Amino acid sequence: MGPIIALFTDFGLEGPYTGQVKTVLHRTAPGATIVDLFADAPAARPRPAAYLLAAYATWFPPGTVILAVIDPGVGGARAAIIVEADERWYVGPDNGLFELVMRRAETARSWEILDRSTATSASFHGRDLFAPAAGRLARGELPAAPPRLEGSSRHLDWPDDLPEIVYIDRYGNAMTGLRASLLPAKARLDASGRVLSRARTFSDVPEGEAFWYENSNGLAEIAVNSGRADATLGIAIGSPVAILG
Amino acid sequence: MGPIIALFTDFGLEGPYTGQVKTVLHRTAPGATIVDLFADAPAARPRPAAYLLAAYATWFPPGTVILAVIDPGVGGARAAIIVEADERWYVGPDNGLFELVMRRAETARSWEILDRSTATSASFHGRDLFAPAAGRLARGELPAAPPRLEGSSRHLDWPDDLPEIVYIDRYGNAMTGLRASLLPAKARLDASGRVLSRARTFSDVPEGEAFWYENSNGLAEIAVNSGRADATLGIAIGSPVAILG
Amino acid sequence: MGPIIALFTDFGLEGPYTGQVKTVLHRTAPGATIVDLFADAPAARPRPAAYLLAAYATWFPPGTVILAVIDPGVGGARAAIIVEADERWYVGPDNGLFELVMRRAETARSWEILDRSTATSASFHGRDLFAPAAGRLARGELPAAPPRLEGSSRHLDWPDDLPEIVYIDRYGNAMTGLRASLLPAKARLDASGRVLSRARTFSDVPEGEAFWYENSNGLAEIAVNSGRADATLGIAIGSPVAILG
Repeated sequence: MGPIIALFTDFGLEGPYTGQVKTVLHRTAPGATIVDLFADAPAARPRPAAYLLAAYATWFPPGTVILAVIDPGVGGARAAIIVEADERWYVGPDNGLFELVMRRAETARSWEILDRSTATSASFHGRDLFAPAAGRLARGELPAAPPRLEGSSRHLDWPDDLPEIVYIDRYGNAMTGLRASLLPAKARLDASGRVLSRARTFSDVPEGEAFWYENSNGLAEIAVNSGRADATLGIAIGSPVAILG
Repeated sequence: MGPIIALFTDFGLEGPYTGQVKTVLHRTAPGATIVDLFADAPAARPRPAAYLLAAYATWFPPGTVILAVIDPGVGGARAAIIVEADERWYVGPDNGLFELVMRRAETARSWEILDRSTATSASFHGRDLFAPAAGRLARGELPAAPPRLEGSSRHLDWPDDLPEIVYIDRYGNAMTGLRASLLPAKARLDASGRVLSRARTFSDVPEGEAFWYENSNGLAEIAVNSGRADATLGIAIGSPVAILG
Repeated sequence: MGPIIALFTDFGLEGPYTGQVKTVLHRTAPGATIVDLFADAPAARPRPAAYLLAAYATWFPPGTVILAVIDPGVGGARAAIIVEADERWYVGPDNGLFELVMRRAETARSWEILDRSTATSASFHGRDLFAPAAGRLARGELPAAPPRLEGSSRHLDWPDDLPEIVYIDRYGNAMTGLRASLLPAKARLDASGRVLSRARTFSDVPEGEAFWYENSNGLAEIAVNSGRADATLGIAIGSPVAILG
């Protein structure tokens, strides 16, 4: 099979945005395998999205191209960039979205995308700027220019792990920006004043009980067996989580 | 074209679950054609899902692999199985989801999936256990072990047709678990105390009128012309339906 | 890569409709690239959908096949047609959906699809009638019969541009049926009694402010920076928009 291009956006799937992006990718990199990773990543919020992306992107094999567009500043002054981190490629806006991917990588470099044609719309860089760049990477055209200086546009004030909810899935499970492997084995989490113990998975706790567990991509996730954690606990993207020893 | 792999899940499409499953399928069975059959099958309810699956899976050509995951017991004691029924292959949890597929088939066999690696997460067998098994089937690797004993883990107490709503579609149409071809031509259905007559299709009844018809996959479906049957009749998955002669 | 088949429907993606349509397309035209353009086009409303389709379909390269199904009259008397307009192919119901595509094209022809087999369901022509026709076009089988007489089933009373909302996207942005390039540079739009000025894009106006702009497919679109235009202005598909000089 050809290279994988994984999409991480807030574009949704039913409207016109993702379909146009995929059309550009198919035309630029025929034979690439395109998969939807997230189409409902935190809308217009690069900071929680950055922790979600770092947990999920590294699941893909080396050589994968990740097109990541959470881009409230589209059409404004923010740069467009390519990042290479541990042999995976990332394309998207320079707004912090790749901060955790870069920080956690053994090796990371970045390039600004400068070849903006006049055909680039002011509001849809996902289609007009990022997708062509991702397609070129997928077909093997690597950046010709030298990478940017180390430290360009970094968000070094952001924490290594984010003690907040970064994503609510369709079942109402709430992912945090905390890597479970870095938490004490017996750690409890406080969310909305409720103290939650760790479990292995849903079927290990009684129905209706709230708990936290290490999800299948390594994040600490808050859930309720046979229920919705978001509604039960009154939590949403951005809600704080405290770690209790 | 290569074999078809059809997905029948409650994973949704916008979050990370279906995309990761498809990535595994693409890598395990390059060249397979992957289609989304249902991503909103009855969440965590294998019994209504089993009647929906039986009606829709048999629409696919022989050789199709159906990856079906409605799995409230993930990570618990339920087995993981492969089913072969009338030359179609099914992969998923052993919780009754394949009961009607097997019962209605001329020939059916099943195998337990035993090769669980330590890399299998406790909460995402769709990605870690079922997708690799489905991919191996799609690339032609059939089970080497002998099938399970006939009758293993069957749900023979479930009825042949389910007089309940098993799915609400995006238009508010309500599919039952009843095969229309087995109902008397003049049968009426009672749903929520409303008696509904049969029609051929929407445009044959006045606007706003509730009726039932044989849908395009053979199920008796309750609908309202230019309206939502679910809201009009106050019905949901699990609501009972009575057959009136 | 093979030809592109773009889907424009109100079928949604999570239920069984789009997946079955794609299965037929893959089997009829192996190697075609299938993309979802809209799965949430105006449900059962061919008139606003026609203006949306005309703006988005022409973004695709010549040779593209657009399968467009907004079809409240399915199973009734309306014809099924193929349209060729400026070297793109369209397949769908003859209910006005292609009126603007044809009117704006330099050359346009249409054919009625007559080969209805007995296997055609009464309620799912997208799968049983339109998808096979689109697949045959994609694999190069052009209509053998002469086209219909010019003027067949046209909706010449519909305006060239529609001063109404034709689509609300997932962010709450409201697309009109007006081509921005035909509006005076300084035009203001009146929607729900609010007078809106033109801007280049979101980041050019203060947060919370409503404005209109030329979207990435040429339509005049009403938006609120960091907000939802639909909720802020109380507008929906069909809401009128007035052009102020």
